[in-house]
Amino acid sequence: MSVTYAQGFRAAGVEAGVSAIAGKKDVAMVVNDGPLKSAAGVFTANRFCAAPVQWSRAAIADGGLSAVILNSGGANACTGQAGFDQSLATAQETASLLGCPTEDVAVCSTGLIGELLPLPKILDGAHRAFAVLSADEQSGIDACRAIMTTDTTPKTVTIDGSGYRIGGMVKGSGMIAPQLATMLCVITTDASVSAGALQAALTYGVDTSFNRISVDGCMSTNDTVLVLASGASGVEPDPDEFNRLIAQACAGLSRQIIGDAEGSSHDVRIRVAGAQSEDAALACARAVAASNLLKCAIYGNDPNWGRVISSLGTVPESTAAFDPQQVNVEINGVRICDGGKPGIDRAKVDMTPREVHIDIDLNVGEEQADVWTDDLTVDYVHINADYES
Amino acid sequence: MSVTYAQGFRAAGVEAGVSAIAGKKDVAMVVNDGPLKSAAGVFTANRFCAAPVQWSRAAIADGGLSAVILNSGGANACTGQAGFDQSLATAQETASLLGCPTEDVAVCSTGLIGELLPLPKILDGAHRAFAVLSADEQSGIDACRAIMTTDTTPKTVTIDGSGYRIGGMVKGSGMIAPQLATMLCVITTDASVSAGALQAALTYGVDTSFNRISVDGCMSTNDTVLVLASGASGVEPDPDEFNRLIAQACAGLSRQIIGDAEGSSHDVRIRVAGAQSEDAALACARAVAASNLLKCAIYGNDPNWGRVISSLGTVPESTAAFDPQQVNVEINGVRICDGGKPGIDRAKVDMTPREVHIDIDLNVGEEQADVWTDDLTVDYVHINADYES
Repeated sequence: MSVTYAQGFRAAGVEAGVSAIAGKKDVAMVVNDGPLKSAAGVFTANRFCAAPVQWSRAAIADGGLSAVILNSGGANACTGQAGFDQSLATAQETASLLGCPTEDVAVCSTGLIGELLPLPKILDGAHRAFAVLSADEQSGIDACRAIMTTDTTPKTVTIDGSGYRIGGMVKGSGMIAPQLATMLCVITTDASVSAGALQAALTYGVDTSFNRISVDGCMSTNDTVLVLASGASGVEPDPDEFNRLIAQACAGLSRQIIGDAEGSSHDVRIRVAGAQSEDAALACARAVAASNLLKCAIYGNDPNWGRVISSLGTVPESTAAFDPQQVNVEINGVRICDGGKPGIDRAKVDMTPREVHIDIDLNVGEEQADVWTDDLTVDYVHINADYES
Repeated sequence: MSVTYAQGFRAAGVEAGVSAIAGKKDVAMVVNDGPLKSAAGVFTANRFCAAPVQWSRAAIADGGLSAVILNSGGANACTGQAGFDQSLATAQETASLLGCPTEDVAVCSTGLIGELLPLPKILDGAHRAFAVLSADEQSGIDACRAIMTTDTTPKTVTIDGSGYRIGGMVKGSGMIAPQLATMLCVITTDASVSAGALQAALTYGVDTSFNRISVDGCMSTNDTVLVLASGASGVEPDPDEFNRLIAQACAGLSRQIIGDAEGSSHDVRIRVAGAQSEDAALACARAVAASNLLKCAIYGNDPNWGRVISSLGTVPESTAAFDPQQVNVEINGVRICDGGKPGIDRAKVDMTPREVHIDIDLNVGEEQADVWTDDLTVDYVHINADYES
């Protein structure tokens, strides 16, 4: 159902010849028919942020959007003023089709860095998408398919609130480390929510989901997460419930990214508990998630707790307090490291499930945090060695 | 020649059955016959530092060492008090053979984490090594062979100073990111140098070499770099020359680690120039060196400057000032990114040489720094998926 699950939204995904892959849909449009046009966004922190990010960040500044136009087949990043002009022209064409102000249209692009887009094809795609906009289920899926790159499957979410709905789509599959991939996400809701409340919900939701499939919190040149509210349900949601459900939508989508990560054979949840603060737990979990050696071991079905411990030991004491002699590590429920020393025989660990749980207990407090990552596989290397720059 | 190139040193490398690999030498000894016994060391910053590191750090605190005993086949890390007792017993046995105080013997171990050593075999190895100690060339090579793990070749260095000599050996080949591997290094010199001067030279040398094949400056549980001075040449070296030559020895050895990195097909030098400070240049070079996607692209002989730029863009402005629109990137001498935009056609880049040079110009200052790394290959994943924990 994707972005069309919420009332007040139409979507489309069409083939416009932008992508090098024959027959692939590559231009998507999501339109908010209102009555409300609230919007909020979270964008990459990368200093080389792409032209569409520069445009969309400006467009959303007033808290309103009527539409988002997205393309795969080109990131329009590191393309200078000419690239910015392309994003602007794309917004203008879409606005003219919809009869709305240009600054009510956000633009998202994903694909190769350092090349201008084939603008006539993009504009043609805007016309084609506009012509088939629909609120039906298939159109939401089509939109999601049009933004896929190395993704193997569309990633969508639908959630029912108390009298309102939330829908969403995301693309991204190279999120082994998030600065290395492009992640585009559009979430829609028919709840009646102000731009300020949307931004608060989204910021919290992204922080606890997309930013926790992150090795280091960094992002690609194009990462964009947008949420649009149509108010079509007429329901003003309970703020706590709404925040929780937006976070749930973000978590559901980010979990799907991990599940479809390039070449992966295991999804790995790293949970650090017993920390003095959530930030300390998060720093530890990120350090462990960043270990190429651990990821290779997991690919080899090896419950290598030494590689967990040696990564954990790189976290400065000022960042996370713990006594190495009090740290426990469980892999898939088996405590193979107990008080910094060998515990139960590692042969007892069943590494066959796709999902691997690494549970680290620092034993100094009550706070915890999860980070999701994937194993590092031969297929990951092949995919990323052969992907054209 | 290794550690026996400098006068006043004897060495040995023997097979003691510690390693799981039949016929592999696994215990090494390096003895300083003086007259001077100056020593300095740099040790891992890992909070889970191994028992031999704990022992050796204490042993070297007084600035003197008579010998170093090293083993492969077991890291003796995360082994608690029992592990410390093993390192101590190893130092005691060696000291008793040499007739020196126990605290004049450093201990280094490398191999699997989380298992105690087969102590009787280690002690037997100490006896065997003591019995064949020699100042000849082959003994220096034997010592180096005895500390190899996934290394495919012994890594040694010899340097002639003005009237004195420097020799050295190192092991380490998983240094794609240095917290993920064990690096052991022993450097010897017959120059007459105090412990304080040795420490200053070593700290500078390590900082500009081993710490610059580093993704993030982190280290394994066992990393140890020792320098021993015998004074046997009778020469008190010019401090500037001596510091430069120790740095040269460290650089030579660290370059060999990169050249022998697990599964690598390219050695990659990332040079960031035009920075406001060396620290800023270093932070940028490390960020680029940490990109798995870039490393995969290099494995695929793809001069993917977009992956250089997107990694560079993750460095905070407070760490390194630059204007994204003024950044140039050259790969193997071809400026394929000019002012943040596409430059010369990337098809002009010859990616066939083993050594790949990525030159980034920030265009805001005069400082620069180099970081060395390797490509990320299918063989790297195989090696580290199959290496037993």
